Amino acid sequence: MSGTAPAPPPDRLARFAEALEHAGFAAAVVSYHRDVVYLAGTAQPSNLLVVPGKPPVLFARRYVELARAESVVEEVVEAAGFGPVRERLGAYGVREGRIGMTLDVLPAALYLKVRSGLGGYSVEDVSDLLGAQRAVKDDGEIDALRRAAGIFEAAHDAIVEHARPGTSELELSAEVARALRVAGHDGLVFQRRWDAVLQPEGAVVSGENLWAISALAIAINGTGLGRAVPFGASRRGLRPRDLVNIDVGLCVGGYHADMARTYSLGEPGDDVRRLAAVVRACEDAAFDAIVPGVSARAPYEAALEVARANGVAGWFQGHGAYHGPYVGHGVGLELDEPPVLGPGVDLAIETGMVLTIEPKLIVPGVGAVNFEDDVVVRPGGAEYLSDLPRELFVLDGGVAEPLGARL
Amino acid sequence: MSGTAPAPPPDRLARFAEALEHAGFAAAVVSYHRDVVYLAGTAQPSNLLVVPGKPPVLFARRYVELARAESVVEEVVEAAGFGPVRERLGAYGVREGRIGMTLDVLPAALYLKVRSGLGGYSVEDVSDLLGAQRAVKDDGEIDALRRAAGIFEAAHDAIVEHARPGTSELELSAEVARALRVAGHDGLVFQRRWDAVLQPEGAVVSGENLWAISALAIAINGTGLGRAVPFGASRRGLRPRDLVNIDVGLCVGGYHADMARTYSLGEPGDDVRRLAAVVRACEDAAFDAIVPGVSARAPYEAALEVARANGVAGWFQGHGAYHGPYVGHGVGLELDEPPVLGPGVDLAIETGMVLTIEPKLIVPGVGAVNFEDDVVVRPGGAEYLSDLPRELFVLDGGVAEPLGARL
Repeated sequence: MSGTAPAPPPDRLARFAEALEHAGFAAAVVSYHRDVVYLAGTAQPSNLLVVPGKPPVLFARRYVELARAESVVEEVVEAAGFGPVRERLGAYGVREGRIGMTLDVLPAALYLKVRSGLGGYSVEDVSDLLGAQRAVKDDGEIDALRRAAGIFEAAHDAIVEHARPGTSELELSAEVARALRVAGHDGLVFQRRWDAVLQPEGAVVSGENLWAISALAIAINGTGLGRAVPFGASRRGLRPRDLVNIDVGLCVGGYHADMARTYSLGEPGDDVRRLAAVVRACEDAAFDAIVPGVSARAPYEAALEVARANGVAGWFQGHGAYHGPYVGHGVGLELDEPPVLGPGVDLAIETGMVLTIEPKLIVPGVGAVNFEDDVVVRPGGAEYLSDLPRELFVLDGGVAEPLGARL
Repeated sequence: MSGTAPAPPPDRLARFAEALEHAGFAAAVVSYHRDVVYLAGTAQPSNLLVVPGKPPVLFARRYVELARAESVVEEVVEAAGFGPVRERLGAYGVREGRIGMTLDVLPAALYLKVRSGLGGYSVEDVSDLLGAQRAVKDDGEIDALRRAAGIFEAAHDAIVEHARPGTSELELSAEVARALRVAGHDGLVFQRRWDAVLQPEGAVVSGENLWAISALAIAINGTGLGRAVPFGASRRGLRPRDLVNIDVGLCVGGYHADMARTYSLGEPGDDVRRLAAVVRACEDAAFDAIVPGVSARAPYEAALEVARANGVAGWFQGHGAYHGPYVGHGVGLELDEPPVLGPGVDLAIETGMVLTIEPKLIVPGVGAVNFEDDVVVRPGGAEYLSDLPRELFVLDGGVAEPLGARL
């Protein structure tokens, strides 16, 4: 059923335990809900103890019945705090060594408490190891990610129906929020970043706001409703010939898609047509560069080369002094997962990874065009997870025409 | 303008510096966006250095122009990383001592990096100190909090218009999301909790889901769309005589209200009437107990006493083995702020605090009734921030009648 995350396959925990052993960890204690739901199949607040060669144990921080009903881990016990974890480590014969935790998300105050409670062990970061396993998706996850990408059409339809001169970014954003939720959006976006958050309906951005670079990232984030939340839709009213962009994280059954399209209110000028054609060519180039075994920087370099060849590298992924060093990233139980498709990244692209491709040209005084799609990496190359045309759409009275421009 | 957070008054930073000095901190480095926007007036990614007796410095992690335009801190420099912070500490003559950071939100991996970069200093948690200052709101903040409470009426109107047999919780939730966003909801909810998140339109919950205790907290959170996000609206269709509850965090201009109401689809039975009357009496008792100088456990004890006197303490704030140990909490730039109004809390309630009061009776097999409102503490006692009737509403064909029941 749409909206239900797939249960973890039986080998997922075993592979994690093997990776721990291989990396020299005596054990891991996994406490972050996205990691626990990945490994154990439940998002109930829990600490999951994984010791290579021993049965895993899920310590439910509360309401053990729910955790037990959902968990693929057989032994589920109710226990808040890390005392029982320490006892079990002892019972399993683990009396010293490196204990892995995901220190990229564990708050420092809790880390200090746990480290003191686990005195005698060395508490170390296991985020990269778990992130590397999570980066390669299994078939159930790929199906879930395809469902997430599929609901972008609800956002697209809402924009086609409601974007017109006089409507504000905020009103349009509200229609998108409504449409996506009805389509099965979980209603929030999970980001593994302590200093960034996003609205579940994404950023609906128009006109001069398209080239405003705001707090969140170097992308088309919008300017928001004020200084406290300076991203997402603003109260700007749409005007004839405006460009409107939506960039949205779609969470369905806990799995995310990350998609973007640009719309023109009425016929665009030649400058915008040309931007759209180059962005499409950038996307095609990045797509073609995604092959198992190549470095994660290859798609970035391929897209940048297209921008360069067309004389628009100065507007590629930003403008002026600010350019986002990426053309995509992994996507899964969180919106931004490894690998980043960017310069200097040496990680290899692997079969089963699900990646975004998100070229954008941001031109002060003109606008911006941004297409973002998600692909799964197959042995022969990338495969798109949705078939919405990768084009700028021209809106005219509730009807959308793909621009169809090509270089 | 609705949606714009108030700028920090000039004395806010000075009072923080005084509190640091009083607590024996040599300095603080504030890096979390909610804390930075509170002290410096910008949510741009920044590290704010506060040294008692010296001018504060805002180190913008990127896009310094935006930070400079918004910040009330005069000196704004562009600098990622903590090297420049360390240099300035040296230049300010601070060569040793305790450096405060908000370790409740700083990820452990970043803490370890900062601690190593600030070798020679002791990096310690300053969350409670800053939390205590943030707990008492100034007039600009109280106005912002009142605006946030005011948009609950948009959710209320959406429920009155759309709640009917056959509509699903999800569809109703989508209408609430749309209505709140149009009314100026920032579109997300800030929670200072690493292991919990909420949908911006809150939890729309009905029927038997009202007594399902789910992952998030011991409250009426709903069961969500699946195991990965087990809270918020489900796909359950409303039925005649259902109770429907909404509990929602409203974020406007960065400031939150936390409000809840329960609705009955058609005339409720005597059992529900009685629950509503007791919940209202609990709320009244908690309200009356909120006076400057009393302990933060007093409103909890007052509400619990009403539940006890009416023989329903077993359903107060939960049921069975699970009861939430609170009847409210502070609210501000984050949805859950100190103090908790709960047992064992000795912190005193102060003039200027803004607090939620949220009694609920959760009765398996029957339903639940939950009223939640926000109050500001004045010298003479509590004052409600919204005037929506604190009653169960009976819905009948798009019309809502407050039940009007009293004990």
